[in-house]
Amino acid sequence: MDEFIQNRSFDEISVGESASLTRTILESDIQLFAAFSGDFNPAHLDEEYASGSMFGGVIAHGMLSGALISTVLGMLLPGPGTIYLGQSLRFSRPVKPGDRLTVQLTVREKHEDKKRLILDCLCSNQEGKTVVKGEAEVIAPVEKIRRRLCLPAEVSLGGSLYTPQP
Amino acid sequence: MDEFIQNRSFDEISVGESASLTRTILESDIQLFAAFSGDFNPAHLDEEYASGSMFGGVIAHGMLSGALISTVLGMLLPGPGTIYLGQSLRFSRPVKPGDRLTVQLTVREKHEDKKRLILDCLCSNQEGKTVVKGEAEVIAPVEKIRRRLCLPAEVSLGGSLYTPQP
Repeated sequence: MDEFIQNRSFDEISVGESASLTRTILESDIQLFAAFSGDFNPAHLDEEYASGSMFGGVIAHGMLSGALISTVLGMLLPGPGTIYLGQSLRFSRPVKPGDRLTVQLTVREKHEDKKRLILDCLCSNQEGKTVVKGEAEVIAPVEKIRRRLCLPAEVSLGGSLYTPQP
Repeated sequence: MDEFIQNRSFDEISVGESASLTRTILESDIQLFAAFSGDFNPAHLDEEYASGSMFGGVIAHGMLSGALISTVLGMLLPGPGTIYLGQSLRFSRPVKPGDRLTVQLTVREKHEDKKRLILDCLCSNQEGKTVVKGEAEVIAPVEKIRRRLCLPAEVSLGGSLYTPQP
């Protein structure tokens, strides 16, 4: 089965429009983010250390939520053709293994000159509490793009196939 | 061989102090970031599409540089015990496979109340050109921490062992 990716062009996008993804964060996601980034801070990988910390156990890297915000920009709104200009992030609560995150982006401003958009970014957990809040600035594509998806190579972690949990 | 991680406590840190890492970004890093984040935007994975884009080939996700900034915070300055409060990022140039990034963080402000630090964050490429610039805000640890490193599980990508390139 072929899958396609399609963008929302600048002209199609309205202020107030939003897009979101949900993702359950597992310990495997935290391990993979650590392996990728080289951030082996014990708050993320050392259960013995983390259980004695203020969070009572390992927590996800803050930038893991940041990565999911950029996924919404790259895949959904605006999607292909987007130029990422800037991002702000405020980390307000920890994300723990098993937490189910909803990452929602909403277009707040649309500027004709340079086709710039400002989007409010909100990551909340399964209790509806904000874990990360921020603002993204992008140049939206002027042309409609629809492409067959190219997928990354298969990833395994500790010998098991890694697949993100929706 | 055991490796240890050690922090810089608030009292040890001076304004003007800096820490950095260097990393050569390979296509495997981009593929892994895509697999992890679910961001399969063709700018990162579809060579045919990307060769016709303004960048002339695939580029890394902007948040990949963001992740490396957080690695310096988590591993080096201040390291274990850091609470991440916020981050801003401006993406000014693309990062392409083969680019060698230097990610440097410098303490700009130190606030006794709440032990807050503001750090300037600069990612530059092998030509010394800025690719990402930003500002991090953290609470620095008050206690000295030294721990044996816990490493993440082994990662493979497309059947080959994945290891970041220093």
